[in-house]
Amino acid sequence: MTLVELLRADDGSDSANERILDAAYERFLAFGVRRTTVDDVARQAGLARVTVYRRFARKNDLVHGVMLRELRRFLRDFERAVAPLPTAAEQVVEGFALTLRVVRGHSLLARLLVTEPETILPHLTTGAAPYLAVAREFVAAHLDSPDAEAIAEMFVRVSLSFLLTPSSAIPLETDDQARAFARRHLVPFLSSGGR
Amino acid sequence: MTLVELLRADDGSDSANERILDAAYERFLAFGVRRTTVDDVARQAGLARVTVYRRFARKNDLVHGVMLRELRRFLRDFERAVAPLPTAAEQVVEGFALTLRVVRGHSLLARLLVTEPETILPHLTTGAAPYLAVAREFVAAHLDSPDAEAIAEMFVRVSLSFLLTPSSAIPLETDDQARAFARRHLVPFLSSGGR
Repeated sequence: MTLVELLRADDGSDSANERILDAAYERFLAFGVRRTTVDDVARQAGLARVTVYRRFARKNDLVHGVMLRELRRFLRDFERAVAPLPTAAEQVVEGFALTLRVVRGHSLLARLLVTEPETILPHLTTGAAPYLAVAREFVAAHLDSPDAEAIAEMFVRVSLSFLLTPSSAIPLETDDQARAFARRHLVPFLSSGGR
Repeated sequence: MTLVELLRADDGSDSANERILDAAYERFLAFGVRRTTVDDVARQAGLARVTVYRRFARKNDLVHGVMLRELRRFLRDFERAVAPLPTAAEQVVEGFALTLRVVRGHSLLARLLVTEPETILPHLTTGAAPYLAVAREFVAAHLDSPDAEAIAEMFVRVSLSFLLTPSSAIPLETDDQARAFARRHLVPFLSSGGR
């Protein structure tokens, strides 16, 4: 399954895939990635091993599948939250506050960043290009600018940076602080495209 | 030695420290961090083990010391290159092009990101706060804005993001492409502080 297929797939479109990813998520959260095998996931999902291996041959494919599904869900929530807002500036402000809130409250990400950085960090850095592309395309589709792709990429990179290195000279503890930051430092991006 | 002390220390101020960090850099580049011990570094530096252990008790302190010295050197080169430029906008444009060039040509970073991501990625992500603070303070000191700290932090985060995840929808292969990007997407930051 390619990234784009997985992103576009409806939640109910392939119930075996969903069961596998649910099981993988639960195992990763309870035991970590390192101590989980593809066989564990098959057992937890109540599916034949061959069914799982046909779709996710290696454990890393499961990690990738889980992360991509989390990203897809987040982008849907994001869209639901910001689409009703009347201006692009308000969408950026609320979207940034939502992103920080989701990222901070994500139990699996939080667990893996502390207990297994070596598993999760490559996906979020040197191997992040496919996730970055998916998020960039999604954000760009909502921007009305000839420079939509570059502006979207900047949004995504800044959000990812705050996930990876939360510590900041900028106060971002509360939603209101996140909004104030976005208003002053991210909204200006919208008009940065020049000609 | 605190971060700030190490950053401020002159290259010649403590020749034993410099010899140790030179030796550590060479070992890390030739053999990687994992296969280097503090004893190896002492031998390579031609210093007594106790001299090295007194300054760098654990190998991770050596990694930290090497990275901080590289950062310090880079910030000096950066200052030398951008200080003569007449406007803040030109400083940002040339500074960004220089940053990408240095980051891409850095042989130790390049080696470790490929061969030992588990060693280097935590320093550049979850553990990057001290380096980020040093670079932010440095950049902020050169900005004439009430929002200097936040603007500086954004510059540093965006640069770090391109180091960690080079793949981009934005063409940044050449110096001229890096300049064009900085002109359109980073220079507007300079005026983003206005309420």
